[in-house]
Amino acid sequence: MKTLIAVIGDSAPSAETAALAEEVGRLLAREGAVLVCGGLGGVMEAAARGAKSAGGLTIGILPGYDPASANPHIDLPVCTGMGHARNAVIAATAGALIALEGSYGTLSEIALGLKLGRRVVGLGRRESPPGVLPARNPEEAVRRALHG
Amino acid sequence: MKTLIAVIGDSAPSAETAALAEEVGRLLAREGAVLVCGGLGGVMEAAARGAKSAGGLTIGILPGYDPASANPHIDLPVCTGMGHARNAVIAATAGALIALEGSYGTLSEIALGLKLGRRVVGLGRRESPPGVLPARNPEEAVRRALHG
Amino acid sequence: MKTLIAVIGDSAPSAETAALAEEVGRLLAREGAVLVCGGLGGVMEAAARGAKSAGGLTIGILPGYDPASANPHIDLPVCTGMGHARNAVIAATAGALIALEGSYGTLSEIALGLKLGRRVVGLGRRESPPGVLPARNPEEAVRRALHG
Amino acid sequence: MKTLIAVIGDSAPSAETAALAEEVGRLLAREGAVLVCGGLGGVMEAAARGAKSAGGLTIGILPGYDPASANPHIDLPVCTGMGHARNAVIAATAGALIALEGSYGTLSEIALGLKLGRRVVGLGRRESPPGVLPARNPEEAVRRALHG
Repeated sequence: MKTLIAVIGDSAPSAETAALAEEVGRLLAREGAVLVCGGLGGVMEAAARGAKSAGGLTIGILPGYDPASANPHIDLPVCTGMGHARNAVIAATAGALIALEGSYGTLSEIALGLKLGRRVVGLGRRESPPGVLPARNPEEAVRRALHG
Repeated sequence: MKTLIAVIGDSAPSAETAALAEEVGRLLAREGAVLVCGGLGGVMEAAARGAKSAGGLTIGILPGYDPASANPHIDLPVCTGMGHARNAVIAATAGALIALEGSYGTLSEIALGLKLGRRVVGLGRRESPPGVLPARNPEEAVRRALHG
Repeated sequence: MKTLIAVIGDSAPSAETAALAEEVGRLLAREGAVLVCGGLGGVMEAAARGAKSAGGLTIGILPGYDPASANPHIDLPVCTGMGHARNAVIAATAGALIALEGSYGTLSEIALGLKLGRRVVGLGRRESPPGVLPARNPEEAVRRALHG
Repeated sequence: MKTLIAVIGDSAPSAETAALAEEVGRLLAREGAVLVCGGLGGVMEAAARGAKSAGGLTIGILPGYDPASANPHIDLPVCTGMGHARNAVIAATAGALIALEGSYGTLSEIALGLKLGRRVVGLGRRESPPGVLPARNPEEAVRRALHG
């Protein structure tokens, strides 16, 4: 069974946040982890692009029914049709989550991940709920996601 | 169509938080609102008890399949069988949410409620995500939930 | 705790099927049962209209996030935002289901109801999966839904 | 983006049904398709075993939160925590479904697949809802799933 790590964050991120996401995706793929994300744009797309650039595998857990709604770097679109409730599937599917800057959707995924006992690592976030493990750079984020 | 207001918070609350929840439930019922909650114990049960004490109607949106898992003050158990993804159903069903002290489950409901554009009022919380409307007492919480 | 009975069937039914649904809704309300349905049109609306005409209470378990998508006879719109996965919530919430003529959505609800051990009564259906209890008229359907 | 095909059927199948499932899994992998299934035992496990024996990739869409509940031939466990509502995710994620003998869970997946406009192919089934494409053997089932 493969190691599945989610990268979560804003669908309309700053350039800096997108660059962090892409680097995290790249490093996860180098470590042999499978990238899990929400399958759409912004952080989800940047992380998937990074993972593919390093030969990784990507899963996009989509809110709708159309696999074509996935960004072009998603290998495996999982169509939930469940709207925002798909955030719970992302949190549950991931062995650990790496959270970048994001808004309420990201916060819901962090909270659900922590509720489920998943490790949640924060990278480049101004503030996070208690229980989120801080990381100073993509390398540390990936290391903490994989090894605590 | 009736006005549905959710009360969310800890399943093992302090006595003070439980008392606030019960008073909120009572006031909601007096205003003719239907109480929505997660159907289990703690804040969910206290709010439902309060609503019933004032002749209100209560809906419990349960994580499992067994209506008997609902607390004794639930009139209408909605069995989702969806585990924590039911938090999204609570957030979506409520026209507004009143959030008491809680943990990660509560935080996920707040985040999903805000994501969906539902009004979220915080009562007796040490801190809340931006976007949560503060209330100083149950009366204010109910007023803001119903009227902004 | 109230008795919740679902009425399921086509969203574009024949006049005959709609009339059966309305009569079932009326009889359920007379028995004091709460009507559960998918909240939209066709059989869902006819059953809810019948229930309201007899002073009953109606719950609509909606696929989307907008309570205004419910038909005008729904008292309590439960917004799942989960698309067709909401069929599982209808099946699980109902103590028993009365199935009229319908298509694939109805069939999925029948199958999920039977999987969950809910009693499923068929009324006016050409054919049904094994396990569905036949009823010859609305009175019998309601009696079997409530009492087996 | 890869082609995802679901194989669905009984969790306690006959030897004959299990052999069909394994052969279908093998053939799907040879065609380069990714196997989607419910991740547990019976038909789900046989199909995944077949896919792995031919070097394929397997996704298990699980009802619970524990990836270790997946059968040993699942590469990518998607933990929904949504119980039977995960059947809707299986149906929506699959570009097409191949249905073997099964019970109510299988029937719900067939119905949801047809509702969503997914192609559903029946193999070795005594009877199926209208709309299911019949196949006489695993080769035909895979061909119809992939090409209609």
